[in-house]
Amino acid sequence: MYKVVVDVMGGDFAPYEILRGSKQALIRFKDLFLYLVGKSEVLKQAKDWDRVELVEAEEVVEMDEPPGEALRKKRNASIFKGLELLKEGKADAFVSAGNSGAVAAGGIFILGRIKGVRRPAIATLLPSIKLPFVLIDAGANVDSKPEDLFQFGLMGKVFLERIWKREKPRVALLSIGEETGKGNTLVKKAHNLFKASKLNYVGNIESRDIFKGEVDVVVCDGFIGNVCLKLSEGVAEVVMSMLKEEVKKSILAMFGMTLARGALKKFKKRIDWREYGGAPLLGVKGNVIIAHGRSDRLAIKNAIKVAMESAKLRLVEKIEDAISENLVKEEK
Amino acid sequence: MYKVVVDVMGGDFAPYEILRGSKQALIRFKDLFLYLVGKSEVLKQAKDWDRVELVEAEEVVEMDEPPGEALRKKRNASIFKGLELLKEGKADAFVSAGNSGAVAAGGIFILGRIKGVRRPAIATLLPSIKLPFVLIDAGANVDSKPEDLFQFGLMGKVFLERIWKREKPRVALLSIGEETGKGNTLVKKAHNLFKASKLNYVGNIESRDIFKGEVDVVVCDGFIGNVCLKLSEGVAEVVMSMLKEEVKKSILAMFGMTLARGALKKFKKRIDWREYGGAPLLGVKGNVIIAHGRSDRLAIKNAIKVAMESAKLRLVEKIEDAISENLVKEEK
Repeated sequence: MYKVVVDVMGGDFAPYEILRGSKQALIRFKDLFLYLVGKSEVLKQAKDWDRVELVEAEEVVEMDEPPGEALRKKRNASIFKGLELLKEGKADAFVSAGNSGAVAAGGIFILGRIKGVRRPAIATLLPSIKLPFVLIDAGANVDSKPEDLFQFGLMGKVFLERIWKREKPRVALLSIGEETGKGNTLVKKAHNLFKASKLNYVGNIESRDIFKGEVDVVVCDGFIGNVCLKLSEGVAEVVMSMLKEEVKKSILAMFGMTLARGALKKFKKRIDWREYGGAPLLGVKGNVIIAHGRSDRLAIKNAIKVAMESAKLRLVEKIEDAISENLVKEEK
Repeated sequence: MYKVVVDVMGGDFAPYEILRGSKQALIRFKDLFLYLVGKSEVLKQAKDWDRVELVEAEEVVEMDEPPGEALRKKRNASIFKGLELLKEGKADAFVSAGNSGAVAAGGIFILGRIKGVRRPAIATLLPSIKLPFVLIDAGANVDSKPEDLFQFGLMGKVFLERIWKREKPRVALLSIGEETGKGNTLVKKAHNLFKASKLNYVGNIESRDIFKGEVDVVVCDGFIGNVCLKLSEGVAEVVMSMLKEEVKKSILAMFGMTLARGALKKFKKRIDWREYGGAPLLGVKGNVIIAHGRSDRLAIKNAIKVAMESAKLRLVEKIEDAISENLVKEEK
């Protein structure tokens, strides 16, 4: 039985969609037990569910609340109460679609960092023309150092190898030119660390090419990763909405699009981030899965699946091993 | 008569498309005179053209050549020879689709910076759901300082006001959250400079929202700007190619898409960067227009148009005024 904590209060569509997604996960996975954390009035809806324990948390961290402040003032909020359950060893993993900064801060403060990890990072899986790839850090850190970037690459590689069974993941640094020497000071310094490592490091990658599926782990500072993540969503949305607008101007085009409906649906599924579940916060002592703020039931169900896989495949231990192995090498 | 220098050798489709675009511009604009700079064997094709002077430059800066090296070793390359014509006062503006780093380095070295400008920046116009907006810096600088970002905002505002007649452009800082205080150290420090200025500063903008047309000038470091620019193109391309792939799997969908052809064409025109011509390198003492590396004849014709407009509306002087006005204020 895998025990997963779900923050019922987090996300733009909480609590309704979070509850629905939790229910779907319980139906789908028979070896799943859930701790649902949230306001008592919300939890009522789940009082008759099987394989569930309800944990009351009357406070909620707002989506735009500064993480540090929330951590000081709202220790009884669902995010932090949920993480405490993980810390106490009652559960195997934690899922929240709430304030990702607060989840990251709480994860680091309550669970602590894995020994040797400088800064935990968010590893987001994204679709490409070929196989999905990992973008790390997707937003846990700003003002990263070269050594941070190197650890992001290492952790991203372990995540992809263990959870997604990717062999010898190709690791690349996000930069503004493929050639060595192109980039800012951070990228140039990180390049040397990667070059000297045993990772399957393939050099720089330009943002234009990350969706082509030629690399498996794209490494960058969390400010840039977060900008990229949100920009990709923004562009895809704008492209689709402009297309719709033009189609609406012509009855013929509207009819044509109706005929193409099946293909459009398959296409949408392919670029749908909800299929990939949540993004783990790698480097903390526990399986913390950050789901998209706009998660609906499908996204939550898939995030719970990633949480279960992380526990089953002992992701935290694998990262611990990789980091300590690398530290030993450095000390030599 | 407006005199524009065109680097015939620069760009992925040089020299053929550059020559065709130049010819189209000459046909379209009767008050245009062109200096075509390039290899003698290429220039032969234009020997009978009206309103043209041919300038031989037997060297070419390659697309991936380090700018500093090119500047030292290839001073007779078309980019640098073209910029010299501007420096000598023979021409009013310069257009190149070649190595943008070399154009920026050459522009700064040969023409010099406008007094008070810390670092020149590339201002790229991009489509949005409403009016186009300016992204600055799109790649001339990495490791920018807060003061650089402030000047980027100031120059971007002048460009949009003068060339594109936008009234009171709204200026925003690209960050990872709309709330003040979200972002990295650079953004937080730049925020204070903008806040204290007379610019129509509207705070942070998230990358997801830049295409919504709610702000006119999006300010960021050149590393991030370049990543955003290329990512937007990459996402739009991947979305369209995945869509095509799914459509091709069904005859019905293919037929449907044929019916929607007119709408698709209009849509493509709307997101087509070629319509916006080139991006000026703002802050140097001359009108330098950097065209997209993949420019075809249409893009070149439009870049020449932007070059003419910049000369006609005396963009350099306007930026000079804005910067000096701001410096005077600082000194008070």
